[in-house]
Amino acid sequence: MADRVALLSKTRVRVGIVGATGYTGAELVRLLSQHPRVEIAMLVSRTEAGKPLAEILPQLGGIDLPPLSALDIERLTNECEVVFLAGETGFAMEHAPALLKSGLRVIDLSADFRLRDPAVFQEWYGIPHRAPHLLWEALYGLPELTPPDAYQYARLIANPGCYPTAGALALAPLISADLVDTDCIVIDAKSGVSGAGRSRVSVDYLFTELDENFKAYAVERHRHTPEIEQTLSGVAHQAVRVRFTPHLVPMTRGILCTAYAHLKQPVALSDLHALYTTFYGNQPCVWVRPLGEFPATRHVYGSNRCDIGLTIDARTQIAVVISVIDNLVKGAAGQAIQNLNLLMGWEPTLGLPLSAIAP
Amino acid sequence: MADRVALLSKTRVRVGIVGATGYTGAELVRLLSQHPRVEIAMLVSRTEAGKPLAEILPQLGGIDLPPLSALDIERLTNECEVVFLAGETGFAMEHAPALLKSGLRVIDLSADFRLRDPAVFQEWYGIPHRAPHLLWEALYGLPELTPPDAYQYARLIANPGCYPTAGALALAPLISADLVDTDCIVIDAKSGVSGAGRSRVSVDYLFTELDENFKAYAVERHRHTPEIEQTLSGVAHQAVRVRFTPHLVPMTRGILCTAYAHLKQPVALSDLHALYTTFYGNQPCVWVRPLGEFPATRHVYGSNRCDIGLTIDARTQIAVVISVIDNLVKGAAGQAIQNLNLLMGWEPTLGLPLSAIAP
Amino acid sequence: MADRVALLSKTRVRVGIVGATGYTGAELVRLLSQHPRVEIAMLVSRTEAGKPLAEILPQLGGIDLPPLSALDIERLTNECEVVFLAGETGFAMEHAPALLKSGLRVIDLSADFRLRDPAVFQEWYGIPHRAPHLLWEALYGLPELTPPDAYQYARLIANPGCYPTAGALALAPLISADLVDTDCIVIDAKSGVSGAGRSRVSVDYLFTELDENFKAYAVERHRHTPEIEQTLSGVAHQAVRVRFTPHLVPMTRGILCTAYAHLKQPVALSDLHALYTTFYGNQPCVWVRPLGEFPATRHVYGSNRCDIGLTIDARTQIAVVISVIDNLVKGAAGQAIQNLNLLMGWEPTLGLPLSAIAP
Amino acid sequence: MADRVALLSKTRVRVGIVGATGYTGAELVRLLSQHPRVEIAMLVSRTEAGKPLAEILPQLGGIDLPPLSALDIERLTNECEVVFLAGETGFAMEHAPALLKSGLRVIDLSADFRLRDPAVFQEWYGIPHRAPHLLWEALYGLPELTPPDAYQYARLIANPGCYPTAGALALAPLISADLVDTDCIVIDAKSGVSGAGRSRVSVDYLFTELDENFKAYAVERHRHTPEIEQTLSGVAHQAVRVRFTPHLVPMTRGILCTAYAHLKQPVALSDLHALYTTFYGNQPCVWVRPLGEFPATRHVYGSNRCDIGLTIDARTQIAVVISVIDNLVKGAAGQAIQNLNLLMGWEPTLGLPLSAIAP
Repeated sequence: MADRVALLSKTRVRVGIVGATGYTGAELVRLLSQHPRVEIAMLVSRTEAGKPLAEILPQLGGIDLPPLSALDIERLTNECEVVFLAGETGFAMEHAPALLKSGLRVIDLSADFRLRDPAVFQEWYGIPHRAPHLLWEALYGLPELTPPDAYQYARLIANPGCYPTAGALALAPLISADLVDTDCIVIDAKSGVSGAGRSRVSVDYLFTELDENFKAYAVERHRHTPEIEQTLSGVAHQAVRVRFTPHLVPMTRGILCTAYAHLKQPVALSDLHALYTTFYGNQPCVWVRPLGEFPATRHVYGSNRCDIGLTIDARTQIAVVISVIDNLVKGAAGQAIQNLNLLMGWEPTLGLPLSAIAP
Repeated sequence: MADRVALLSKTRVRVGIVGATGYTGAELVRLLSQHPRVEIAMLVSRTEAGKPLAEILPQLGGIDLPPLSALDIERLTNECEVVFLAGETGFAMEHAPALLKSGLRVIDLSADFRLRDPAVFQEWYGIPHRAPHLLWEALYGLPELTPPDAYQYARLIANPGCYPTAGALALAPLISADLVDTDCIVIDAKSGVSGAGRSRVSVDYLFTELDENFKAYAVERHRHTPEIEQTLSGVAHQAVRVRFTPHLVPMTRGILCTAYAHLKQPVALSDLHALYTTFYGNQPCVWVRPLGEFPATRHVYGSNRCDIGLTIDARTQIAVVISVIDNLVKGAAGQAIQNLNLLMGWEPTLGLPLSAIAP
Repeated sequence: MADRVALLSKTRVRVGIVGATGYTGAELVRLLSQHPRVEIAMLVSRTEAGKPLAEILPQLGGIDLPPLSALDIERLTNECEVVFLAGETGFAMEHAPALLKSGLRVIDLSADFRLRDPAVFQEWYGIPHRAPHLLWEALYGLPELTPPDAYQYARLIANPGCYPTAGALALAPLISADLVDTDCIVIDAKSGVSGAGRSRVSVDYLFTELDENFKAYAVERHRHTPEIEQTLSGVAHQAVRVRFTPHLVPMTRGILCTAYAHLKQPVALSDLHALYTTFYGNQPCVWVRPLGEFPATRHVYGSNRCDIGLTIDARTQIAVVISVIDNLVKGAAGQAIQNLNLLMGWEPTLGLPLSAIAP
Repeated sequence: MADRVALLSKTRVRVGIVGATGYTGAELVRLLSQHPRVEIAMLVSRTEAGKPLAEILPQLGGIDLPPLSALDIERLTNECEVVFLAGETGFAMEHAPALLKSGLRVIDLSADFRLRDPAVFQEWYGIPHRAPHLLWEALYGLPELTPPDAYQYARLIANPGCYPTAGALALAPLISADLVDTDCIVIDAKSGVSGAGRSRVSVDYLFTELDENFKAYAVERHRHTPEIEQTLSGVAHQAVRVRFTPHLVPMTRGILCTAYAHLKQPVALSDLHALYTTFYGNQPCVWVRPLGEFPATRHVYGSNRCDIGLTIDARTQIAVVISVIDNLVKGAAGQAIQNLNLLMGWEPTLGLPLSAIAP
């Protein structure tokens, strides 16, 4: 724990970002460059090492940044205290063990350390897990649902997926209060296209194929299903089953989840609303909107907020909960910074925008 | 019936379109101008009478059309055999009685004659019905579910709403075969903005408010709910309860419905698919896509098709059915022409495009 | 000429489309399937032979079509009279000679036969021309500017590029009347993304990179420059120099050209407008809009029209002409069908939509 | 000057924002809430006084803000040192005199004080100026072109228009070096729709009318023309004439100007580029991109940067300069804050984002 004390004593932390040219990595760079207590010490890109990041991503042109480097664990260890991994599935489980061994804290934004059970990982991701010994150590960092104490022992934080963030925040109060059937919850989710990442280069993701078009995808199964169920089962202390259908919206950012759950017995809408406002009462990044209001994705564009609106369909006794996030902020880079803040013992929202850009 | 015989003997029909400057009216004009057996004899606009339609809607510039006229029932009677009403709620129930009395056939694209029960109409639309005697006479013209024989006595056809068309076509086979619980069906629908019409001029519908934005609306209740339930209850021969949530997609045209229904008992996916392909086997405007394929709204853009894809979520025993339509074609003007064709005893697809414009 | 007579005597023509799965090819299929005197006899795709086209492009699901075939000149010769080539640059100059030798008429939608001078072709396209002997024979088919008589000898028609169509139609009357300086005309053009085609699969064309984004491209030089200059020089009977800058608009279809030319001497705006209305008086596919009106791309979406609006900037003595087309219709497939109609001696607009889809 | 000294001695400044619910006002709120030396002391809205701003604009939900107030000059005087006016044309010239009299500094984001000549104002805006005595006092605050010294006497700053900002920054170096003809410069500008503001509620600005559509507007004359000419004439020390054509892009934010100017004599491209990099060498908010690179609007989305790329069309001897800004940031609210910083003697970029949000 000595190094934990050493880490906490710092007023500033030096971080490295691995995978800086992807959408999530670039968003980390943008947000961290505005963080008052963070120094971006290293940017790692396996394919573009040597170049300035702004040559590849001109939107980041106004910031002083180190040039892109190759992956070099020794340099990372010398120059950073915390490393964000923003690589594809499989990258983190290959490199996290060595990074941790070097004494670095690791915040992984991929799916590699989100699921506790390596068999479930293999079932849904189709490859065996290469660092299963770290799965139980990894802290699943969904700050509104993760016990604050847990951060004090964390070396490796698994940053949640975008859909699981929006889906679990929508349903956790309902499930926590044991108000709904947990064997057939429906989450109908809609996402902007940036969730697919910058390396998904195929006809299906061309502008001309997605513009003015709306579709479901991965209807038969989507990898975020077990992650949502793991989180909600933890809240419920019993198995929760979710029918999850993601859709692609012709826009870049934003996720909206419409969640449907059957009430076990009648509940007053005002009581349900009170349950939510109480549940998230101390959470600066969740805004339970007033009764009768429902959030739009634009309300959280560029923000680390999750907004929630809800109603009860009296005719079918279904609770309908709508949550929105910016998939690249609260659904990825912003939440990772929120996790960094908690790891460092800082205010959870330090350096994070809570207001959104609209229009 | 004499005039029915007279009507059927015609090789061409002269039609009038009331409300020609709205989105639905303009789409009727565009499609009817390409119909081989229709002559557009009168275009009615209460606000723009005297002008050429292309002055207001330059997209219709390439067509020979009569100028816009004021509403004049005598002229309509002299110059047309069939009148399409594309006005706001309340317009048709005010004018249809006189039009019918003059011997005209009427195809109404508004909601005025869709619900059979005037009390239900008043409950959901907030105004009393002014022509309740016509509610039972009006033929609800959803051609794939309406008995073909019914058209031979029809004087007044109520053209279905856009959501009810997509929702009912998605679920009718499942419900007809009594495979699912009918008390808590979920229809999560997503629509392009043109469904709101051209007269919905408010801040909420500005480009800047909807672009790059996704939201639910009318979450607490939407007027299409009872219409969907009426149709599906008719199929089920028992009451069907639907939880219907519409959303607004930042695009102009297209509706996608994701319908969720609990299977009463396990069904093989191949059997379910066979049920759908059989149910719609003779329907030229419905394409049940091969197993494993799911439709996107762009697949039906500008087309009178409804495409359907489906799967079973084995983990929750929920049947998931996805349907898409172009809300202005199969969801409005195209379906109205399909109804005209059936009224005239012609091929249902005469003059209607079945292929879509993409990209 | 015997076969010309034979061709003209036909009431229907059988056509083949090579490159049917690209955006231009698919648009040919969609439009030709609605043409009253065309039978689509063969669809050729080098990569997808054997499959039904609708399996790859579900939007074409509602049409009866032959399956995709490999390129087989003997079969094309047996089953077709006219072949549309919708391949990449270089394809047509490789295959057109053999097709012509077999007695087929060829309408090429690529750039291969648009420029008369093989040296200019090589300078701008970077590859030597492989069928230079056909460059002078090929008829550049911009119907509003091409002499109608020329079609009667045509075996090979070079279908114009999208920008050259919009740019030349905007400027031809001005230049024909010798009203403007011809050494520094500015064409500032804006295009939807579909002009890039379906095979341009790279990061730059991802939805996420182009959505909510506007940019110029090929600023230093664009291949359509010499084609525009060749056409306008033909109209002027002297060399015309154009500064052409294309931009990419976050939409799928449509081109708008804003052309700027210095008046040699003052002209009354009404005279300029009269010049345009007279110049295009007999052209069904060009609509010179009334003075004070300017076209938007949506006015011609899906239509074979080119709409033109104009004004004079009195302060700088610059004539400003704005033209719009649908790049896939009047800018590609629609114009190719217009050329087919002229080749066959039919009405130029036969089977072509002149009204547009909006919204 | 006593109060100037007093103002400069402050480490924090209290500001009021009049017109806080418009797009420009809301962007001021969002940006100022992140400014380290600003306290938002009053928010004024004539129509929504009494409500929390986040009730009307939920995107601003995460910020502590005073409630909306009615316009009350006494309160503004007591609670603020600087007032931003973000009202419609005509508002500032009505209220600025009293605000200035009360000792407040005023930064006006409307057009009221941009033009020095009241006759020109009346000619282009169609109404007489009501505070012409302030036109010469008002400082036109385009920081890259305004002498830094000028800020020390400023009481009233006229914040430039969005197009004039992008247009003047694109051309100032060329014109300053006397390299081009100044009587027929072409500025072809393209803007996202947010420039129209939140109160432009008409059919023309509906989502359905602008989505997937591109058009020019105000082609005959646009009010920003004389403002651009005034600025460039100041740079040139002689009259400059501009042909300015604005267009509407189906996106929310961003302006791209493509400027065309005839070179008086040949210039090497590298020299032209060096001219620009030198001209803007000390300007943190302008990025002259490397030769061969051209900016896209997304590169400056949410940023206070103006990016510039350029080339010379050797064939026509036209210099082509492309500039991009975010119309609501560098084109409005961000530039107003840059002006505040200069007024206060702070770093020009204090509190302003220079990196952009993409995708």
